[in-house]
Amino acid sequence: MKFNKVKGTEDYYPEEKSIQQQIFSTLRTIANRYNFNEVETPALETLGLLTAKGGEEISSQIFTLDKRGKEELGLRFDLTVPITRMFVAKQLELPKPAKWFGLSRMWRYERPQKGRLREFYQFSAEIFGTDSKYAVAETLQLLIDMLQSLGLTKKDFIIKVNNRQFLEGVLDCLDCDFEQTVKVIDKYKKMSGQEFLDELKQAYVKEQQATTILQLLQLQDTPAKMFQEVFKKVNYTNSKKSTKGVNELMDILELLPESFVELDFSIARGLAYYTGTVFEVYDRKGKFRAIAGGGQYDELTALLGGRKTPAVGFGLGYSTLRLLLEEKGLLPQPQTAPEYAVIVMTGYTVSLMTFVQQLREKYSVYVDLKERKPKKQLDYASSIGAQKAIFYGTEEQATGIFTVKDLKTGEEKKVKKEELLT
Amino acid sequence: MKFNKVKGTEDYYPEEKSIQQQIFSTLRTIANRYNFNEVETPALETLGLLTAKGGEEISSQIFTLDKRGKEELGLRFDLTVPITRMFVAKQLELPKPAKWFGLSRMWRYERPQKGRLREFYQFSAEIFGTDSKYAVAETLQLLIDMLQSLGLTKKDFIIKVNNRQFLEGVLDCLDCDFEQTVKVIDKYKKMSGQEFLDELKQAYVKEQQATTILQLLQLQDTPAKMFQEVFKKVNYTNSKKSTKGVNELMDILELLPESFVELDFSIARGLAYYTGTVFEVYDRKGKFRAIAGGGQYDELTALLGGRKTPAVGFGLGYSTLRLLLEEKGLLPQPQTAPEYAVIVMTGYTVSLMTFVQQLREKYSVYVDLKERKPKKQLDYASSIGAQKAIFYGTEEQATGIFTVKDLKTGEEKKVKKEELLT
Repeated sequence: MKFNKVKGTEDYYPEEKSIQQQIFSTLRTIANRYNFNEVETPALETLGLLTAKGGEEISSQIFTLDKRGKEELGLRFDLTVPITRMFVAKQLELPKPAKWFGLSRMWRYERPQKGRLREFYQFSAEIFGTDSKYAVAETLQLLIDMLQSLGLTKKDFIIKVNNRQFLEGVLDCLDCDFEQTVKVIDKYKKMSGQEFLDELKQAYVKEQQATTILQLLQLQDTPAKMFQEVFKKVNYTNSKKSTKGVNELMDILELLPESFVELDFSIARGLAYYTGTVFEVYDRKGKFRAIAGGGQYDELTALLGGRKTPAVGFGLGYSTLRLLLEEKGLLPQPQTAPEYAVIVMTGYTVSLMTFVQQLREKYSVYVDLKERKPKKQLDYASSIGAQKAIFYGTEEQATGIFTVKDLKTGEEKKVKKEELLT
Repeated sequence: MKFNKVKGTEDYYPEEKSIQQQIFSTLRTIANRYNFNEVETPALETLGLLTAKGGEEISSQIFTLDKRGKEELGLRFDLTVPITRMFVAKQLELPKPAKWFGLSRMWRYERPQKGRLREFYQFSAEIFGTDSKYAVAETLQLLIDMLQSLGLTKKDFIIKVNNRQFLEGVLDCLDCDFEQTVKVIDKYKKMSGQEFLDELKQAYVKEQQATTILQLLQLQDTPAKMFQEVFKKVNYTNSKKSTKGVNELMDILELLPESFVELDFSIARGLAYYTGTVFEVYDRKGKFRAIAGGGQYDELTALLGGRKTPAVGFGLGYSTLRLLLEEKGLLPQPQTAPEYAVIVMTGYTVSLMTFVQQLREKYSVYVDLKERKPKKQLDYASSIGAQKAIFYGTEEQATGIFTVKDLKTGEEKKVKKEELLT
């Protein structure tokens, strides 16, 4: 009987895994330069934790495990919640801020589609213990640097920034319920204007206010002018929250290169735990889902039983990132081919094994493992992309002089053993 | 409410994750030198696959997921079964042999104890498409090289080798049921002699035969002498299977350094899919569980719906390996501290951000994110182990000359910006 992989999961064959490892390696290197340290949380968590602050939609997407004994377990659906649990567990002894990142798989039970799997990789960076605007700015700078290190430019992606406090103040002024309205705003990009207005109506927003909200979300200009436009319609300066949000946004935007970051009032973030500045990264053409998203979440530590601690972070999904890199021709070359293939002329001996072992102190080496004729060994070496072949027989063993064949050019030359190994 | 991690799972904080990453990096590097390419399988598999050839014990240990729709899913309990599924799916188009490795988490529902978790990491190397003894020898050589690269020597570990065909032939000669008897032999190391004899009796082995088996398992000598001793009690040369097994073992042992490998007739391997040579790696003191184990499994591809293809591989558990490295004082130093801490003297500006970004092209850099006074920034820099501090203020910005303080020695010196950045 033949078995298939589970729908919405991925098998990584060597080429694909090599591409992924190279991209991961870049993300890790840049995160380390920013002094973010890697952590890892279990795949399994208690249902209590997973449902503590996910919102309804997420709760229905949790893969839960068959109950054995008293434990109710599920698979994590993001990294922020379990990383926050880890922070809370050692909150008192850790130096603050704690700058951590994770790079692991997570799971969501949903209908698989392009760039959306049920088991997928996410990079996640989190800073605990500061509400400074500089922490938000550095987080965004990290994101920019990571994407640039992969070859993407300002022509390829844009970070859209907003602030939930600002939004809350504006909605207060418009006499709208924040929780309900923000859920609709979060879906704005996926709807037509009319659909959006209809959904707002269902969230008990009056027609005139709904029109005003739609106009605000459509604004595109410099931050200063956008806030002026808002002010013309809503006197948000009466709201402390809004004023705080605006000041924070202006401070952050000032520190970051304009060409990478823009203000967008339609960014609201679906996950319920965000409290301050929020952001999402999109490809410039708007072809794919958001590549990354995050923001400040100042109440999650307290909700998970710790002391209230401000935090900021983001998640970056590997699937969409890979799609964008592919479209831009920026995927790294898979590295799966060995540098040398040793062609076995006279059977396996201790001396052959020793020679190969020495060669392997420096190079990736394939040695025939099927006891094939030399011709077949050369064919195989070519099929796996080996760069060079070394012939090993009685004569070579005796003289210490080897024929090395370049499998790309066909060129052959004699090389002394010592030269090969140094 | 405070949430705990799930029993039998591990949180990796930065220090522990850094240790693990360095060990993983060594394993990956050596595997690549042997031209094994990394692959990765999903965590989720169908129950059909997972129970296809696990044996009863494993089946009861599978973490199964709540059924939604028609799918019956579970978490993988090893890497060999899903990697074999991946091989079967592309068997016809792949060059043979395929040399793959995996390095991921897996899950077994069992009672957590020291060195035995319910969620744990395993390295797994597999070769598909050859039944050559050289493939087995190379697999063992890879294992030796990986452990040596981590600093372990022949004084620290030993590979114990046996062959299931040989064992089957001998048990045939003794008129014992192979399947039943081999299960008892697999538990031999965990029992007293009397317990072992009692268990054999329960597997319908007669008293005299049981005594003979016990004597065989206790043999310790050179391979040649051990086979002589077996021959004195059981004329295994009448069995084709045994003879084949003996020849294979002798060929393999000849190619490998004696000091790392020894014959041990009590090695049987619990998992049901092994068919030929089998092996386990133990610390010399016998203090921990097996560090690694594997062997030839020639029927698994056919069982999973592919063409019958010989295969060999092993799994190496991270938990036990880490315990042994710790005991031997061989754990790598955690690398979590930044090279530089930039001490912010006059607030965050674009010019500061640009300077830090330039520094980060080469170094790991921490910058205060809590808007603290310089003294507090220095304290924090020391608390996270930063090597050097750089003071950044208006003067430094204007002159391009920075004071760099070595936080270990307290020594201070003036360094030009260009020197810092090149």
